[in-house]
Amino acid sequence: MSKLTDVPKRILIGRALRSDRLGETLLPKRIALPVFASDPLSSVAYAPGEVLLVLSIAGVSAYHFSPWIALAVVVLMFTVVASYRQNVHAYPSGGGDYEVANTNLGPKAGLTVASALLVDYVLTVAVSIASGIENLGSAIPFVVEHKVACAVAVIVLLTLMNLRGVKESGKLFAIPTYVFVAGVFIMIAWGAFRGLVLDDTMRAPTAGYHIKAEHQGLAGFALVFLLLRAFSSGCAALTGVEAISNGVPAFRKPKSKNAATTLAMMGLLAVTMFCGIIALAMTTKVRMAENPATDLIHNGVAVGADYVQNPVISQVAEAVFGKGSFLFIVLAAATALVLFLAANTAYNGFPLLGSILAQDRYLPRQLHTRGDRLAFSNGIVLLAGAAMLLVVIYGADSTRLIQLYIVGVFVSFTLSQTGMVRHWNRHLATEKDQAKRRHMVRSRAINAFGAFFTGLVLVVVLVTKFTHGAWVALLGMVIFYATMSAIRKHYDRVAEEIAAPEGPSDDSVRPSRVHSVVLISKIHRPTLRALAYAKLLRSDTLEALSVNVDPAETKALREEWERRGIDVPLKVLDSPYREITRPIIEYVKGLRKESPRDAVSVIIPEYVVGHWYEHLLHNQSALRLKGRLLFTPGVMVTSVPYQLESSEAAKLRARKRQDWNAPGAVRRGPAEERPKEPSASGSASKSSSGPSSGSSSGPSKR
Amino acid sequence: MSKLTDVPKRILIGRALRSDRLGETLLPKRIALPVFASDPLSSVAYAPGEVLLVLSIAGVSAYHFSPWIALAVVVLMFTVVASYRQNVHAYPSGGGDYEVANTNLGPKAGLTVASALLVDYVLTVAVSIASGIENLGSAIPFVVEHKVACAVAVIVLLTLMNLRGVKESGKLFAIPTYVFVAGVFIMIAWGAFRGLVLDDTMRAPTAGYHIKAEHQGLAGFALVFLLLRAFSSGCAALTGVEAISNGVPAFRKPKSKNAATTLAMMGLLAVTMFCGIIALAMTTKVRMAENPATDLIHNGVAVGADYVQNPVISQVAEAVFGKGSFLFIVLAAATALVLFLAANTAYNGFPLLGSILAQDRYLPRQLHTRGDRLAFSNGIVLLAGAAMLLVVIYGADSTRLIQLYIVGVFVSFTLSQTGMVRHWNRHLATEKDQAKRRHMVRSRAINAFGAFFTGLVLVVVLVTKFTHGAWVALLGMVIFYATMSAIRKHYDRVAEEIAAPEGPSDDSVRPSRVHSVVLISKIHRPTLRALAYAKLLRSDTLEALSVNVDPAETKALREEWERRGIDVPLKVLDSPYREITRPIIEYVKGLRKESPRDAVSVIIPEYVVGHWYEHLLHNQSALRLKGRLLFTPGVMVTSVPYQLESSEAAKLRARKRQDWNAPGAVRRGPAEERPKEPSASGSASKSSSGPSSGSSSGPSKR
Repeated sequence: MSKLTDVPKRILIGRALRSDRLGETLLPKRIALPVFASDPLSSVAYAPGEVLLVLSIAGVSAYHFSPWIALAVVVLMFTVVASYRQNVHAYPSGGGDYEVANTNLGPKAGLTVASALLVDYVLTVAVSIASGIENLGSAIPFVVEHKVACAVAVIVLLTLMNLRGVKESGKLFAIPTYVFVAGVFIMIAWGAFRGLVLDDTMRAPTAGYHIKAEHQGLAGFALVFLLLRAFSSGCAALTGVEAISNGVPAFRKPKSKNAATTLAMMGLLAVTMFCGIIALAMTTKVRMAENPATDLIHNGVAVGADYVQNPVISQVAEAVFGKGSFLFIVLAAATALVLFLAANTAYNGFPLLGSILAQDRYLPRQLHTRGDRLAFSNGIVLLAGAAMLLVVIYGADSTRLIQLYIVGVFVSFTLSQTGMVRHWNRHLATEKDQAKRRHMVRSRAINAFGAFFTGLVLVVVLVTKFTHGAWVALLGMVIFYATMSAIRKHYDRVAEEIAAPEGPSDDSVRPSRVHSVVLISKIHRPTLRALAYAKLLRSDTLEALSVNVDPAETKALREEWERRGIDVPLKVLDSPYREITRPIIEYVKGLRKESPRDAVSVIIPEYVVGHWYEHLLHNQSALRLKGRLLFTPGVMVTSVPYQLESSEAAKLRARKRQDWNAPGAVRRGPAEERPKEPSASGSASKSSSGPSSGSSSGPSKR
Repeated sequence: MSKLTDVPKRILIGRALRSDRLGETLLPKRIALPVFASDPLSSVAYAPGEVLLVLSIAGVSAYHFSPWIALAVVVLMFTVVASYRQNVHAYPSGGGDYEVANTNLGPKAGLTVASALLVDYVLTVAVSIASGIENLGSAIPFVVEHKVACAVAVIVLLTLMNLRGVKESGKLFAIPTYVFVAGVFIMIAWGAFRGLVLDDTMRAPTAGYHIKAEHQGLAGFALVFLLLRAFSSGCAALTGVEAISNGVPAFRKPKSKNAATTLAMMGLLAVTMFCGIIALAMTTKVRMAENPATDLIHNGVAVGADYVQNPVISQVAEAVFGKGSFLFIVLAAATALVLFLAANTAYNGFPLLGSILAQDRYLPRQLHTRGDRLAFSNGIVLLAGAAMLLVVIYGADSTRLIQLYIVGVFVSFTLSQTGMVRHWNRHLATEKDQAKRRHMVRSRAINAFGAFFTGLVLVVVLVTKFTHGAWVALLGMVIFYATMSAIRKHYDRVAEEIAAPEGPSDDSVRPSRVHSVVLISKIHRPTLRALAYAKLLRSDTLEALSVNVDPAETKALREEWERRGIDVPLKVLDSPYREITRPIIEYVKGLRKESPRDAVSVIIPEYVVGHWYEHLLHNQSALRLKGRLLFTPGVMVTSVPYQLESSEAAKLRARKRQDWNAPGAVRRGPAEERPKEPSASGSASKSSSGPSSGSSSGPSKR
């Protein structure tokens, strides 16, 4: 056995557990921040602009409400961050909102959150890329002139990258994110310096424009409604905050504490950037209109359909740094890059959530397997397809896409926080330690406020945005919800159907004997191998079966059979229509009819080939026959493969596929770190004495 | 056994052998004629027009050559018909040109003919439908205004009909074909009566038009070349003549004689119609131009791009019967219908030729199976796709498509006739009977003349049409030829690789023992069944194998295993990355390494489901695992199916599919009528004593 220990060890421990890889995988805070925060931080690139856009409906005079709206967003951000810090401590396993809602509010709430998150991932891709293109376009006009095409191209590029399985590193995220954050802070600082110390007059490119108010002199309810809509749009800044709660296992120890700290840092950065940009926008007199073509007036005339309304962040940068200056270009590029990275996070989160849902049987079983390339690919393609559809339908216009965006986020915020309240209630019911109780009561208060506030925002978002596009997001959620419920129902029905009856394995119709039938077309190595294997199996009867589709060939077969003295009887079925499947099926059915208590074992020699086109040339009849035989009760079908030389190519390909790295691994942390019952896991991997961790020490002799 | 005799009988004899169906299938001459002649007879709808079109290049004055060209076509038609009458007698098996060339000239010639025929089938569809649309358009202008769309629609319709497998009857062909033939003859007779007896002046709608000659006053070589080109175009009338030689088995006895008679009748009809239409076209002064828009002059001005040049047959019908008259409409409709039927014959011929080529391993093996729906469907879709492509590229313009058409036909004519000469030479070498020898010499002379004449025409066609589009047909042939050669080469290479070594079955590495491994995910009916079956097989060792992807589930599995007291040892593999395939593969490889002379039998419980979407939800991991296991040497993979309730639906569907009728059956005749060695066939179907015609009387007990 000494020579063998290496192989079982590799099997049991897995290559990926090597300590160098493990060390590489766990994230320090300085890397975790950019990895998880690219999505929420990047949203300051579009959120301030959306606030101004909505306010412009009531004319420039409404702009003076923007600090108040910013304040509301800041309060909300702090609330959400504080709430999620509780989540991170209570659920360090990384299940995130779905786990919290599922555990505390039941499967329906869990499924609702899951549907909301899935829709959200699609919209993260669509919005981030649309906004990224617009930011890039402020530096490179060509890009914005071919907005839809460029957005689709970026989606395709990201999709291909993710399908190929690029090996990620935290640095990949760190550099652009830090450049972006630094750029924005330099801009705010330099702007403040110029404005307050140098007393420069900084003017945005649109500073001299006028806005034709669509509704002049709004007041009362209408004004409140407009302000709420502006606030809803500003809430786009909160998207992605929940990401860290999914990624706790990827942090260095103490995981929860580090994750909570990172969350707080992220909230602080986001809020500062958001407010800074709004303040600079007010100072530099940025003018945004919902319909710039008609409502933005320059020198007394509307700017017309050709006008490109640059994002607030780029207008501010132009005012502060100067158009075409080095820093302006750097900031535009970093903004676009960080937005594309934000889109990329959805590519990682989507299949991860899918695997968790598959574990709960809401999605096909095989998605459960971590890092399964095929499952991963299907998820990626679905995500990319949906995002592309939205981008094309909405003309890659981030403003229109954002109307759809915020619903899903706040559905999961609200349900997750409500679930946390329940969580604390449950723990408070049993906890005796007063210090812990006090802590829990405090946490519950935070989560309760979070649930109330995010719930309120959800209502506001639904009311103010429903007709503007939120209904599309809701429809998407309903579709996901219905599909996943149906899948779960199917699995439950099947599980009931196949449940084993109690008692020590009393399979009611237990076969008593086996008739083995080896299918023969010609005598060659594959059939000889199949015959040899069939003999080894020692079934009760054994015969070779051939179908006569060509009398000359059949005659030759019979002669060779006798000449070689093969000691298995050969039976030939006639087939007047040169069919293969039907005669065999009928024969097998006949055998079963003759002795209904026996099983039939059909043994099929199969060629293993290396290229897809060779599949078209081989095994097609065998495949079809197998498909039909499986419907015949009491039959088992055995493939005896014969590896043709060309199969080596496919073997190599398969091996290569196996070593593929699923993107998003950086955010997930190592798999062993997130077991459901840590005590039960790994017991086998510690034993090095044998290949098995089970109750037997090896195959039993019979 | 008495209860069983019915089943094996049905297996051996096959349902389709019931005498009522057999009687229905064999064709009397009056039905065989329309079934086989719709293609060649329908070509008189476009061939005369093509002659006039080419002649018009030299101006109207060149029209007086048309009777001479018609004469040449008639001579050629008689030659070809006479030649094929020899084929029909010599090769009554229905192999057609491919068989003749393959047998007598070798596989390369055979493959060339096959490639030519395959291209030909595609063009038959494209040309017939384009021409049908033009004829229909002469009665219904809408159709010709949306020529391409209508042609594509008809192709789609025919494709769907053929994919569905409409049950054909000879009558389906008989009625439109006879209506068409009768219509043309009435037209010729009535035209002759009006012209000769009543002395009416019948004028075609284009009678008053002038043609601007593209090359005025052609003479010498140029004129000869033009006449040869016109003759080439007229040869379109010969397409489809070879069809009967493929269909001899479908005739009533005496098959060859009846087929030869039908061939003669067809030739006579075609020639009469062709000449009659040309004569009427001359009398009624039909004017056709290759580029009517610029070269057809009416009242001194070119007719322009909007002008629709109606086919000769419809112009003649208009002159004889009167525009919009009942007979005019009937003839237009019958012409279109018979052309569509001609296209339909290609849908039947293409898969039939495919099955013959598959028998010779030039195409994937499974196409060999007669009436195999999947194979048939692939052929149909390929044919329809190629035809549609041509129709779209060439704007459904029959004149442009015909340039491609005739090459393939004459390639197969020439090679087939050359092959026949060889055939007679071979037989003359051994034949002693003087009467028979004289007959053979006569036949050889006919075939030799046929080979010479058709070869000459082939050269003429190639020279005159190469740049006009014949190169496309040649390219198509080269592609088919290369693909089929490559397939054959692949099969030959594989056959060599897997050839069994001589000596009584001395498989060099013969396994000595079998380790059986049953894969277990949970304990339920499918796994219990798999365990029960595995025990029946009495392998040397047996163990159950599970992969630990979820410690909680694994723990539950172990507990239930013990509680149920299942007497098979359970082994659990750890899988840190929640993979299933890799640990099992590695484990199996480990087993093999441990004892390289043993085989491993992996037994997989499988769900059998009824709907495609259920496939997505089940067995995906099993399928992938199976795919990988097949690459591992020394392994056999057994599926133990468990039929879920929903599988009933799929079972019914499969049964329905099995009873499907492949279109074209009418033309092929019953399968039993075309065995390779009639003496060896059917021996089993006559014995009613047991289910087997082989050397054993039943499964042997061991």
